[in-house]
Amino acid sequence: MITKATIKQIASLRQQKYRKELGLFVVEGRKMTEELLHSDFETVGLYATEAFLSEHPYFDKAEIASEVQMEQMSGQDTPPGILAVVKIPKQGEIITQAHLVLALDGIANPGNMGTLIRTAEWFGIHDVVCSSDCVELWNPKTVQATMGSLFRMKVWKTELPAFLQKAKNEGKAIYGALLDGENLFQIKEKPKGILVIGSESHGIREDVLPCITHPITIPRVGDSATESLNAAVAGAILMAEMTR
Amino acid sequence: MITKATIKQIASLRQQKYRKELGLFVVEGRKMTEELLHSDFETVGLYATEAFLSEHPYFDKAEIASEVQMEQMSGQDTPPGILAVVKIPKQGEIITQAHLVLALDGIANPGNMGTLIRTAEWFGIHDVVCSSDCVELWNPKTVQATMGSLFRMKVWKTELPAFLQKAKNEGKAIYGALLDGENLFQIKEKPKGILVIGSESHGIREDVLPCITHPITIPRVGDSATESLNAAVAGAILMAEMTR
Repeated sequence: MITKATIKQIASLRQQKYRKELGLFVVEGRKMTEELLHSDFETVGLYATEAFLSEHPYFDKAEIASEVQMEQMSGQDTPPGILAVVKIPKQGEIITQAHLVLALDGIANPGNMGTLIRTAEWFGIHDVVCSSDCVELWNPKTVQATMGSLFRMKVWKTELPAFLQKAKNEGKAIYGALLDGENLFQIKEKPKGILVIGSESHGIREDVLPCITHPITIPRVGDSATESLNAAVAGAILMAEMTR
Repeated sequence: MITKATIKQIASLRQQKYRKELGLFVVEGRKMTEELLHSDFETVGLYATEAFLSEHPYFDKAEIASEVQMEQMSGQDTPPGILAVVKIPKQGEIITQAHLVLALDGIANPGNMGTLIRTAEWFGIHDVVCSSDCVELWNPKTVQATMGSLFRMKVWKTELPAFLQKAKNEGKAIYGALLDGENLFQIKEKPKGILVIGSESHGIREDVLPCITHPITIPRVGDSATESLNAAVAGAILMAEMTR
């Protein structure tokens, strides 16, 4: 039986304050939950409606929730019928191993954050280092936009300028998406190092700029009047080209 | 003086039903409004708070709204202080002239819709043909995500399968983003024709598939477990590569 206190607690996880306090976040939907259960993340609660279970009987570990209970727990307008409560993992030491690391500087929009993580995985980039003011990874909209990638990726939050300065001192190449850099399509060798994507409104910040060793630009075509690309789009085009 | 009836009418434009009924939509924010006023779109109302006008005095045609009135009119959590009411233009005949045309098949998310239009403009693609079930262009979230591009782009809604079939009969190349097409990075000549992006959940639909003459794929890197890319991201990577 699902108690009222449990329902209230799960509903409270829509707010960052309670996610932080309880160390928990919520995952919803069939695909996301499947990927969760195949991951190393610790699921502490799994709830499904009878309607959902009749169509997906293999979720046999789920506790049955009434439609009303699911509506109360779910943060979505149309609850998908399955919901998991998951422990927020402790952040370990930053150990990047991949040929290319994605660094996010102040990404504020959860949809962009999740999309960048999902896209990184597609292009074989598994390490993401975020500035401490990036939108929270456990925000339901971020979780949703990753489409499950967050369960397989390594994502850290840290003081980005210090992290990048150290990497630069170690001789790593730091690529930065800027409006006046080298033409992305003219980069000759296959890039190795760190790719920095700036925030939606301000781009790469002043204290990060001195760390950039390779400014790169996605060239505009013709006389386009657009001033910039969406951050997730710019990141995707750079990742696609830099990993091909 | 702004009447209560005006405020009520503007607030009602958050709903598609009233946008359709009144033939009007809302634009908010400094940059978007600037681009609107430089466009051929017909602005029927322009409202700004005194605080906004003291910082941006060149919006001298705006009627002054109190903070409370602006909050009532605005669809945003934090009203930017300037808001325009704009006539929805009548759709003309579809006359695509550009080397590459973007076709959107059932894009449902307004953020993706707006981002695809913004990205198309960056890459010099000015013609967008949408299936009749694509999310509405005048949805405030779509408008916002275009970042002003919609005032300069040609966007049509039509029966996409018939439009594509006709183009195919005329000998045009129809590129489609599919999971089992030719490797995007191995396309030799600079593509000309129509690029079709499918919906977030179902991809390109069955009645559109027979029109595709050139299926293309964005290759995954390594053993990535991701099943797909976000629709706006996939569209952006294709447009970047096909127009370079």
